[in-house]
Amino acid sequence: MSRTRVHNFSISLDGFATGEGLSVDAPFGHAGHRLHEWMTATRFWHGLGVVEQGEGAAGSTGADNAFAERHEHGIGAEIMGAGKFGPPGWQDDAEWRGWWGENPPFHTPTFVLTHRPRPSLPMEGGTTFHFLDASPAEALDTAREAAAGLDVRIGGGPTVVRDFLAAGLVDHLHVVQVPILLGRGVRLWDGLESLEQGYAVEAVSTPSGVTHLTFTR
Amino acid sequence: MSRTRVHNFSISLDGFATGEGLSVDAPFGHAGHRLHEWMTATRFWHGLGVVEQGEGAAGSTGADNAFAERHEHGIGAEIMGAGKFGPPGWQDDAEWRGWWGENPPFHTPTFVLTHRPRPSLPMEGGTTFHFLDASPAEALDTAREAAAGLDVRIGGGPTVVRDFLAAGLVDHLHVVQVPILLGRGVRLWDGLESLEQGYAVEAVSTPSGVTHLTFTR
Repeated sequence: MSRTRVHNFSISLDGFATGEGLSVDAPFGHAGHRLHEWMTATRFWHGLGVVEQGEGAAGSTGADNAFAERHEHGIGAEIMGAGKFGPPGWQDDAEWRGWWGENPPFHTPTFVLTHRPRPSLPMEGGTTFHFLDASPAEALDTAREAAAGLDVRIGGGPTVVRDFLAAGLVDHLHVVQVPILLGRGVRLWDGLESLEQGYAVEAVSTPSGVTHLTFTR
Repeated sequence: MSRTRVHNFSISLDGFATGEGLSVDAPFGHAGHRLHEWMTATRFWHGLGVVEQGEGAAGSTGADNAFAERHEHGIGAEIMGAGKFGPPGWQDDAEWRGWWGENPPFHTPTFVLTHRPRPSLPMEGGTTFHFLDASPAEALDTAREAAAGLDVRIGGGPTVVRDFLAAGLVDHLHVVQVPILLGRGVRLWDGLESLEQGYAVEAVSTPSGVTHLTFTR
């Protein structure tokens, strides 16, 4: 049965998944790259082709990498929020095609939730961006159909993940807690009292200093 | 040199150290005992004499217990907030002597921060409650003198721990993250952006499901 999954979703100790001051030059605002250094150090990330040439070795292959790789397996579609697809105001730029170049690392139909839909954007490597003005449940129905029996990933950002959690639509949640305090930004956990009661929860810290939390039902 | 330490300070995944609705019957409000079950399962806790007779075995002796025991070693005084000493309104009850009976588990001079000081209360077992209307730095000076070269523990609640952290007065912080979402209450981490930069931070998850975070400088 097709499941709905969240992977590699990084937050600070104080629960922020992104900082303040988002822009085209600062996709995560004042958080910079600090929430994702654990992931960019892995072989999974190096294999995505997003690491520049000469940046060195093939990446770590331990626990962080094992978690990171699960991002891919069995996924047939992604749903993301408007805030993940581009910087504030991208809806006013008819030429904006996402952050990821011509071959985005999704390789499936990818549904962008926005109140201002535009025509679908076929990219290289199997990714096609579709733009939906829809509720979480409606978007999930559409994405699940596109996934053709595979799982659907909720790709973020925090508001979208929270909305899908609050609607009871997430079957597997992987959160990575990074030992920094951002102080401000957008929180993941707001309004999710007692969420753990519907899930088996595990926590495991790894030598990189992060703690992987998994919620599975 | 005398250090300032916080131990066994439990928070939920969403950062709350206490719930809402605190009262004499619910010292942690809607959080109940859930933030502290990891600790009451340890041998440390059983050795405190706070477990009722017949409740069974002597408690766990693994990693949770090792962390829990550090609460005691080398401590010469404690500072706590008014909210730890009693339920809301205890200042209006001249007979209130704390939650802990005649032999409280502190066994040192213990300074209660309150805007309404009262005469000191000597208890059994070495605890004397003193009541101070003072800033964190002033209270620490007073407690350090009483500690006679030993360390000073900041005992909570969250507002007091946060105030001491913000003032740069804490040398060692041990936080225990419990895998529940309280949704509401009093947060530990508010206003502490970049706190980690002054500390070495470690995280370790244990089989009980909690994650111990230590900040040391």
